[in-house]
Amino acid sequence: MLYPSKTVENAVLQISKLPGIGKKSAFRIAMHLLKANADISHQLAQSLVDLKLKTQYCVHCHNISDDAECHICTNPKRNSTIMCVVQDSKDVMAIENTGLYHGKYYVLGGLISPVNGVGPADLHIDKFFTKFPSGTINEVILALSPTVDGDMTAFYISKKVNEYGIKITTIARGIPVGSELDYMDEITLGRSIEKRINYENI
Amino acid sequence: MLYPSKTVENAVLQISKLPGIGKKSAFRIAMHLLKANADISHQLAQSLVDLKLKTQYCVHCHNISDDAECHICTNPKRNSTIMCVVQDSKDVMAIENTGLYHGKYYVLGGLISPVNGVGPADLHIDKFFTKFPSGTINEVILALSPTVDGDMTAFYISKKVNEYGIKITTIARGIPVGSELDYMDEITLGRSIEKRINYENI
Repeated sequence: MLYPSKTVENAVLQISKLPGIGKKSAFRIAMHLLKANADISHQLAQSLVDLKLKTQYCVHCHNISDDAECHICTNPKRNSTIMCVVQDSKDVMAIENTGLYHGKYYVLGGLISPVNGVGPADLHIDKFFTKFPSGTINEVILALSPTVDGDMTAFYISKKVNEYGIKITTIARGIPVGSELDYMDEITLGRSIEKRINYENI
Repeated sequence: MLYPSKTVENAVLQISKLPGIGKKSAFRIAMHLLKANADISHQLAQSLVDLKLKTQYCVHCHNISDDAECHICTNPKRNSTIMCVVQDSKDVMAIENTGLYHGKYYVLGGLISPVNGVGPADLHIDKFFTKFPSGTINEVILALSPTVDGDMTAFYISKKVNEYGIKITTIARGIPVGSELDYMDEITLGRSIEKRINYENI
């Protein structure tokens, strides 16, 4: 690609490093910023730098936070007896946006993945188990992706949590609401027949 | 949407102002930058600020440039007798990437568009006509989009350029190379039959 100037080329290079953005989109974004008011670039640039400077991980749950403790851990209305284990902060946000969960979270920061060389020591898993001896937690919900890595991580955690005699649940698997059966993969469809639920529980 | 922190929310807001990026993509980008090395955000932020600080428009052709004169206008190997009129810098880049044009450019900075309230005075059109009295230009190529605004702008320019008795051409219209006839719109297909060319000229 021949760019009109080195500055534009550098900007396109930097922008196209972002996930889901190719060279063409990056160039369109660069041209947009070039034409727009200088304030737009400045505000954007500042917000990107702030992302690393001003955010930190909550000391209790490892969720992203502006402070040492996140707004969920410090909220006295949240039920501290239920702990929902998720892979990432974006999963916390996804569940929060449903408005249906009122317990606390624990963010692992990834999944156990032998293929990618990620073991329990690379995640926040071991610190998680220090929360149980105090006896305040009644239920652990495993809200991990139904993938090989997700299942392996869930198995590892459930085995350890079992030692404390705490109830372990996992998010329901099956056909997503609104989807058409004939577009569904066989494994999901097959499992959802095998593990069918009473109609009243729908 | 409930974001994990105000800083993340602000970054998502700023990122999602970019063209072609929605809230979900913006959040994915923010999370990517949060996890990545701080250098990545800094380099990206700096490159965005530089876009406005270090680039300018070429005094001759209004193309984007790092200097007062762009690298095409100052290139002695380019044919100064041919002038290709385009809407935008990104069109210069598109034509340059074909490697088949060796003349100079003139960037209008937009198209005449009565619907959007854009007249000739809002573009770099009038300055364009000051280039002809010197008699160095033999041909003007109109490389504008085949849209209502593009056609109107082409008509306006061609009328004025005609006064100088200079040859005016326009980029060929027809079926794009590699496309299938049955997926083509009727206007393009109809025109390409009416305006058919000799087989040798393909």
